Amino acid sequence: MKTVGINGYGTIGKRVADAVRAQPDMEIAGVVKTSPDYVAEGAIEAGYDLYTVEGSADAFAGAGLEISGTVDELTTESDVIVDATPGGIGEQNAPQYAEQETKAIFQGAESDALVEQSFTARANYEEAVGADTVRVVSCNTTALGRLVAPLEEAYGIDQLRVTLVRRGGDPAQSGRGPIDDILPNPTTIPSHHGPDLETVFPELDVTTLGMKVPATHMHVHGFNVTLEEAPDEDEVLDLLDDQSRIFLVPTEAGIDGAGALKELAHDRGRPRGDIWENCLWENSLTVEGRDLYCFQAVHQESNVIPENVDAIRAMFDEAGKDESIAKTNEALGMGL
Amino acid sequence: MKTVGINGYGTIGKRVADAVRAQPDMEIAGVVKTSPDYVAEGAIEAGYDLYTVEGSADAFAGAGLEISGTVDELTTESDVIVDATPGGIGEQNAPQYAEQETKAIFQGAESDALVEQSFTARANYEEAVGADTVRVVSCNTTALGRLVAPLEEAYGIDQLRVTLVRRGGDPAQSGRGPIDDILPNPTTIPSHHGPDLETVFPELDVTTLGMKVPATHMHVHGFNVTLEEAPDEDEVLDLLDDQSRIFLVPTEAGIDGAGALKELAHDRGRPRGDIWENCLWENSLTVEGRDLYCFQAVHQESNVIPENVDAIRAMFDEAGKDESIAKTNEALGMGL
Repeated sequence: MKTVGINGYGTIGKRVADAVRAQPDMEIAGVVKTSPDYVAEGAIEAGYDLYTVEGSADAFAGAGLEISGTVDELTTESDVIVDATPGGIGEQNAPQYAEQETKAIFQGAESDALVEQSFTARANYEEAVGADTVRVVSCNTTALGRLVAPLEEAYGIDQLRVTLVRRGGDPAQSGRGPIDDILPNPTTIPSHHGPDLETVFPELDVTTLGMKVPATHMHVHGFNVTLEEAPDEDEVLDLLDDQSRIFLVPTEAGIDGAGALKELAHDRGRPRGDIWENCLWENSLTVEGRDLYCFQAVHQESNVIPENVDAIRAMFDEAGKDESIAKTNEALGMGL
Repeated sequence: MKTVGINGYGTIGKRVADAVRAQPDMEIAGVVKTSPDYVAEGAIEAGYDLYTVEGSADAFAGAGLEISGTVDELTTESDVIVDATPGGIGEQNAPQYAEQETKAIFQGAESDALVEQSFTARANYEEAVGADTVRVVSCNTTALGRLVAPLEEAYGIDQLRVTLVRRGGDPAQSGRGPIDDILPNPTTIPSHHGPDLETVFPELDVTTLGMKVPATHMHVHGFNVTLEEAPDEDEVLDLLDDQSRIFLVPTEAGIDGAGALKELAHDRGRPRGDIWENCLWENSLTVEGRDLYCFQAVHQESNVIPENVDAIRAMFDEAGKDESIAKTNEALGMGL
């Protein structure tokens, strides 16, 4: 049984906490919040012990929310900390985790240089075995890794080109844009996603183009890969259908975009309407010679959650790749 | 002096009318409206003779709008009709134009099979010389043609791949969507744009992926072309800078998307804020071996307007390609 502390109980942190608690071989020591808002109340209601940073305890007491201790105390009590603080804060926290000799998992907004290994379970689980610091790459990079790994293994990849049409913000991020605009973002090429994917696949030749649009539910990728050998379209579909974290959106389902996918997830009773899987439109998969094209949608709030769980098992060498992925999937209820 | 009738005075028709009237060698015989709405009033105010379809004259009279005659009468008075009716109606109108032996230009929503030649001035002006029926391809296809033509001439094209992030509707199309969604549209690959571009470049190997998003101002393309030889980035920039209908968006301008481009067009006094040029972000142009990448934005309401003007000169063999393009540009005030 591994004891896990969650530093940062926001979009990612609260989902990782629930996912870890659902595992048979893990438990939550507590979660860290910096302000006593509705999300902190939710943590208490969910039954998590609440920790906070130096100097914030009084604010929680004032709001009637019980605090169990500081981040340092949580770190001492935990076998591993999942740092889900805003980008850049993880880097500030890292020395303290190291000093307390507690393993730590960081999120995709931190730098690859901060950790021993950037991580996507399907692509490079083994590389993280025994590591003290791991970074779960961002939602887009995770989704690309899940799709690239089986294609690379089966056919070899000559060149990868992806246009990422990114949601402007999450539903609760009311201060973000754009409104009624399409932004090349950045206007320079490649976007950071290509180099980020190379932290997982060092040999990959990849170019990514990023855009930002007025949508909140999911990202959508226009995906093109030139394989080393021409694949058979039906074989590729079978291959992708076998990937436990890729949901092949059936043509007959009549799902036309991200909104319908979220509706499906809600109808299926998914917590918070989460979609942990890449959602790849079956009828978009098109082969032209060695070139393969498709569309996939990525739920930015939840698709890295299973990877955070698998990273824990890898770091403690508690299970092999397939065993961990299967365990995580079963505990979460993967499969739409 | 060629006399031009405009059948359909909507988004495209009213712009073509103004552009034709601005030419030294063309005049407008009249414009056709089917209903006496604010746009019809605008046509009268702009000084155009108003024509209408069989049976609609009374409605115009009731609204106090003077009607000069029917479509057939306008066709008789015109050397050429620019049919800017909604998609599919042009096909219904075509036999009448033919019967009256009046040349006709159709828009991109009609089928290539309807006409002698699909047309983009920069790409295949000469193919339309003397034709009786021409189709100006859609805004996206026109923009692709303008970019593909110089690249094809200078380097040869091995393969073209474009992800088109399309605005959901024009600003006045209040009934269209999506709201807060990103739709692969269609979910199948290729979108119609690839085959459409092949009506202008029959030899081109092109794959297009279409998406639709909640934006109204412009489309944005994520553009990738594999050239037959590796180009020099600065040479490509010079080549594109020489194209009169490509506006290289300067990095120092700080233009981050379609909204800022429209603001620029308004500030420059462009009629209706129109942008006839492809808007290609200078700092997006990236060369990796034989692969070239960039972003370009396309103003769906106006970028085909110059092509409608050039098509008229080509069909009457009134000017060569460069002469017509220069004349059209000068009369419009091309160049941002």
